[in-house]
Amino acid sequence: MLVSIKGDVRIFSYAAVGGAQEAKGPLGRAFDFIDESERFRQKTWEQSEGEMQRIALRKAMDKAGLSDGDVGHLFAGDLMNQCTSSSYGLMSFDIPHVGLYGACSTAAESISLASVMSDTTDSISAAVTSSHFCSAERQFRYPLEYGGQRTPTSQRTVTGSAAFLLGRGRGKIQVKQLMFGRSVDSKISDICNMGAAMAPAAVDTLTRFFEESGTQPQDYDKIVTGDLGREGFEITKMMMAQKGYNLDAVYDDCGLLIYNLAVQDMHAGGSGCGCSAVVAATSLFPAMERGEIRNLLFIGTGALMSPTSAQQGLPIASIAHLVHLSVM
Amino acid sequence: MLVSIKGDVRIFSYAAVGGAQEAKGPLGRAFDFIDESERFRQKTWEQSEGEMQRIALRKAMDKAGLSDGDVGHLFAGDLMNQCTSSSYGLMSFDIPHVGLYGACSTAAESISLASVMSDTTDSISAAVTSSHFCSAERQFRYPLEYGGQRTPTSQRTVTGSAAFLLGRGRGKIQVKQLMFGRSVDSKISDICNMGAAMAPAAVDTLTRFFEESGTQPQDYDKIVTGDLGREGFEITKMMMAQKGYNLDAVYDDCGLLIYNLAVQDMHAGGSGCGCSAVVAATSLFPAMERGEIRNLLFIGTGALMSPTSAQQGLPIASIAHLVHLSVM
Repeated sequence: MLVSIKGDVRIFSYAAVGGAQEAKGPLGRAFDFIDESERFRQKTWEQSEGEMQRIALRKAMDKAGLSDGDVGHLFAGDLMNQCTSSSYGLMSFDIPHVGLYGACSTAAESISLASVMSDTTDSISAAVTSSHFCSAERQFRYPLEYGGQRTPTSQRTVTGSAAFLLGRGRGKIQVKQLMFGRSVDSKISDICNMGAAMAPAAVDTLTRFFEESGTQPQDYDKIVTGDLGREGFEITKMMMAQKGYNLDAVYDDCGLLIYNLAVQDMHAGGSGCGCSAVVAATSLFPAMERGEIRNLLFIGTGALMSPTSAQQGLPIASIAHLVHLSVM
Repeated sequence: MLVSIKGDVRIFSYAAVGGAQEAKGPLGRAFDFIDESERFRQKTWEQSEGEMQRIALRKAMDKAGLSDGDVGHLFAGDLMNQCTSSSYGLMSFDIPHVGLYGACSTAAESISLASVMSDTTDSISAAVTSSHFCSAERQFRYPLEYGGQRTPTSQRTVTGSAAFLLGRGRGKIQVKQLMFGRSVDSKISDICNMGAAMAPAAVDTLTRFFEESGTQPQDYDKIVTGDLGREGFEITKMMMAQKGYNLDAVYDDCGLLIYNLAVQDMHAGGSGCGCSAVVAATSLFPAMERGEIRNLLFIGTGALMSPTSAQQGLPIASIAHLVHLSVM
């Protein structure tokens, strides 16, 4: 069902943190903090990822002049087993923590729930997420030292974190509507083809959104999915066209925006919880504040499998959560 | 911050599913479905756990005469890596899925967010969670075949799932207030002593709740934590007494209620996402409907570590989410 945010909830501050490859990409200069070593002064990759979340949230709060007591709730999640990047990375904040798991859809999921909470309680909420290439490779694929070869449809997990602050009556970017996704059986079992696995979920949510809202793709300045990459981007365009929705003029994907794919060797593009989060914070939301995008559909896409479910032969379950944002 | 649910949101249907040990416990007869093989007709323990969620939600919906289209959102989570029990187990429902990770606090977390969503959108929300002894042992400790010895402070992961349906104007159990927990450094590193690790989080949330609500333990008929077991139960009572709150007459713990510890060899008691969920659905909520408990504080407690964070020597982060329920 379509959820309307009635109480003028806006995204009024945000910050992005990234690694070496993200710094070299087209959005590199727009990050608030870069550590090219990708270690963020921590001993393990898992702790590095958590530290990125801490830096991102602290920077977003500093920009808005907020201290911990000003923020009512923190909605956060990541790709790590038991979401430890969020639970441990954000432990130093004296803010109630609502843990989420939506795989790479977590930026949209956390912004959505933060909007609902800020709307209901008239308080400030934070949304934070992250991914880290090195911790994700170790957990989902191979240790980096193994030097595994990547297939053409594979994507690069973005090393990045972004934090967003939401509340009433501040800032320009208003959260208008939400459409939460369903867990969809993608019928894809290739864990090196996340784009193809997530495209059906994006199509499911977009279709339901257009039907329930009575709108068309051309009613929006931009429609941006989270991390479908080259493969998923093309599949989504094609599947939407088959359903009578032409996305051509307005559609883009964060996995294609984060790297310069002509120069950087990232195969099908970027992925991970951090991908859509940092693209929103370094590109989409600044463009909204400058008035270049006035009406945005931001669709977080997630592949919900685990290494265990993949080993047991299950096809990849996927999901897509949609946030409709517009400039005041 | 204390969140008040203003729109008369009530828990109007629920169902619980369990395994062999849960059937033998004092609440065994109150389960809606038991499979003593604990396989639930599935090939793997992970899929068995997902199937428990499916059965629990279907039964809760059947009791209320609801079909998929009647439920606006599904809030669900579990202990498995990437929360696959929820994502895969509930995939057959045509209902938007909001994935959560709160470890063993997920029953309280999902009921809380479902209340907020039902309050904001005036629609029906579902909250579902589960745990399974066999899938949890394999993932967090040792394969069952290894026959690892358990320490006296260890707890038994409950094989169980419960689903709850919330909405306005139906049923007797009203959600009054919520207090989300903070991610707390327990300073405990022993992963066989979850009770001690989670007690500080329960104390943190309870203390903030009593302070912000201006109430005392004696204002409630029952105060029940999720799965602290013998060790955590005693620590919580002691720590609360040090802060001037005497819990003696009203305090209980789901980890002590689920098994008959004098007969069943469960060491410090039950644990897992399923523990507080099934105790709520088989004992606490039925007692509320009978009028035996009129005013309940239900506190989901969770240990947020992963095997990786434990291996890297980090102390256990823990959390406790509180729901204040009262009978109409």
